[in-house]
Amino acid sequence: MNILIIGGAGMIGAKLAQRLARDGTLNGKPISSLSLYDVVPPAAPAAAKMPVKVMTGDLPTPGEAGKLMADRPDLIFHLAAIVSGEAELDFDKGYRINLDGTRLLLEAIRAAGHTPRLVFTSSIAVFGAPFPEAIEDEFFNTPLTSYGTQKTICELLISDYTRKGFLDGLSIRLPTICVRPGKPNKAASGFFSNIMREPLAGEAAVLPVSEEVRHWHASPRAAVGFLLHAACLDTNTVGPRRALTMPGVSVTVGEQIASLRKVAGERVAARIRREPDPFIERVVAGWPRNFAPARALELGFKADASFEDIIRIHIEDELGGRVA
Amino acid sequence: MNILIIGGAGMIGAKLAQRLARDGTLNGKPISSLSLYDVVPPAAPAAAKMPVKVMTGDLPTPGEAGKLMADRPDLIFHLAAIVSGEAELDFDKGYRINLDGTRLLLEAIRAAGHTPRLVFTSSIAVFGAPFPEAIEDEFFNTPLTSYGTQKTICELLISDYTRKGFLDGLSIRLPTICVRPGKPNKAASGFFSNIMREPLAGEAAVLPVSEEVRHWHASPRAAVGFLLHAACLDTNTVGPRRALTMPGVSVTVGEQIASLRKVAGERVAARIRREPDPFIERVVAGWPRNFAPARALELGFKADASFEDIIRIHIEDELGGRVA
Repeated sequence: MNILIIGGAGMIGAKLAQRLARDGTLNGKPISSLSLYDVVPPAAPAAAKMPVKVMTGDLPTPGEAGKLMADRPDLIFHLAAIVSGEAELDFDKGYRINLDGTRLLLEAIRAAGHTPRLVFTSSIAVFGAPFPEAIEDEFFNTPLTSYGTQKTICELLISDYTRKGFLDGLSIRLPTICVRPGKPNKAASGFFSNIMREPLAGEAAVLPVSEEVRHWHASPRAAVGFLLHAACLDTNTVGPRRALTMPGVSVTVGEQIASLRKVAGERVAARIRREPDPFIERVVAGWPRNFAPARALELGFKADASFEDIIRIHIEDELGGRVA
Repeated sequence: MNILIIGGAGMIGAKLAQRLARDGTLNGKPISSLSLYDVVPPAAPAAAKMPVKVMTGDLPTPGEAGKLMADRPDLIFHLAAIVSGEAELDFDKGYRINLDGTRLLLEAIRAAGHTPRLVFTSSIAVFGAPFPEAIEDEFFNTPLTSYGTQKTICELLISDYTRKGFLDGLSIRLPTICVRPGKPNKAASGFFSNIMREPLAGEAAVLPVSEEVRHWHASPRAAVGFLLHAACLDTNTVGPRRALTMPGVSVTVGEQIASLRKVAGERVAARIRREPDPFIERVVAGWPRNFAPARALELGFKADASFEDIIRIHIEDELGGRVA
């Protein structure tokens, strides 16, 4: 099986590549080659059990997507996107990368003619407030950002290309990834991870919203699990509705902090400083709080068991098991 | 006020042009010019109260949409599309006309920079079975045709361009138009109109489905009314959700025939011949039967009062008041 990861330099793409490189098989079949593609060079995973090809390029450039089909990948993960904030600031760039790039990829897959599985990472940004306390699978998509609009359009295209038999696609809507490793960033959603990651590393972190704020989370490990499950799923059981809201863990910020206290102690939890920021409070008020993703659960997608587990996964996978 | 109708040669586009040409004003403001654009030459309406410009061209050709902005239209009706059956048979043509054409139009409007009102005709094809008996406003879009996918994508783009302030858009999802004037056609939905229009004109018509089949209808006159209401609406009251399911009349085929009998007599209704067609039965089984379009009703959109009225409108507007 030839596997291609588009967006292989990103946080989830790199973790997915490491997992595939280490496993050597997927769904009982040997992985014969792994190709990683991104706009910056992806890191080749260490000790891979198969040849790994690393490629760079700009997906929306005409001809580029066609080159990615040269090895006729049997399975394509499409994770490449510019993020919500950037797509909102640069309208043309957002549509170019997030919509045109995907559409050119779909056309290249159609032209190759071998009907590979395509797993596309969509987002809960396809939903826009107001919405019910727990969003069900049949709730409509009313994105309130260009990023969310682009993701919704890609979902629709992938469902239509699948229906026409050009590919076998699944769009999976990831929860907010928590605990996101790396540096604190200025994304409005950054604090959900910052208030866990920084204290666990011995640093102070700022909480800009009330402890009542509720949100929807998945660990990076769970996200990789969703991607692999989508890759192996018997799509004959899925039908024409190919966009699936992934399961997650719905917790308030207060519950996040209580979990941190339980897993790592008061000494760590005390590193969180409350500094309410009305702007961030307002932005976050428009975000989904909870979902009832019945279809994904029926199809066997597995969320983290609890927010405590999300913290433990971060400690295991990012901190070598040690809390500062 | 400069008004542009894209798709001015179509059945609804021509009726809309006639109405605007006759009225001379819209929302209390004089119409200073009316431009009609289509791929084939639109007929200039008779006795127009303003200068009428007739243009032909291929909307998705680069540069074409920009030309349409030369007069800086204050109000643009975008009705141009290739129909469902053709979009399904010719995948590339469907995406080129129905998606790329619209996107180039949106970009040309954005480049012109004067934020006109845009009224786009979408379709109940944005919904795909299974659905509830009456589809509510927050039900999700799962189109089962490329046409429905293209319409859904255009709705999303128009909402996003509106949110960004590039235009002031509304997408209105028309019911099936009944009684559609003209010749019988082979569209799977053709019989809903055929079994009314042909008997009223003294001709036989074939009913290929059971009388239990329920569907969602609006007269051409109601459809023009929706377009004009959308053109005049105070969009400050609409918010960011710019795609609206229009109200309609939900009736079974049996109720259609009973209405025909009541309006035109048994002599006319007896011209309908039952010839069940399992293929058409199956196609129609996947179509919406009824809607609960609360938002459009709140915003003042008005459906026909009854199916009998739909028949009377056809007799008045197409048959000069006379039944054969």
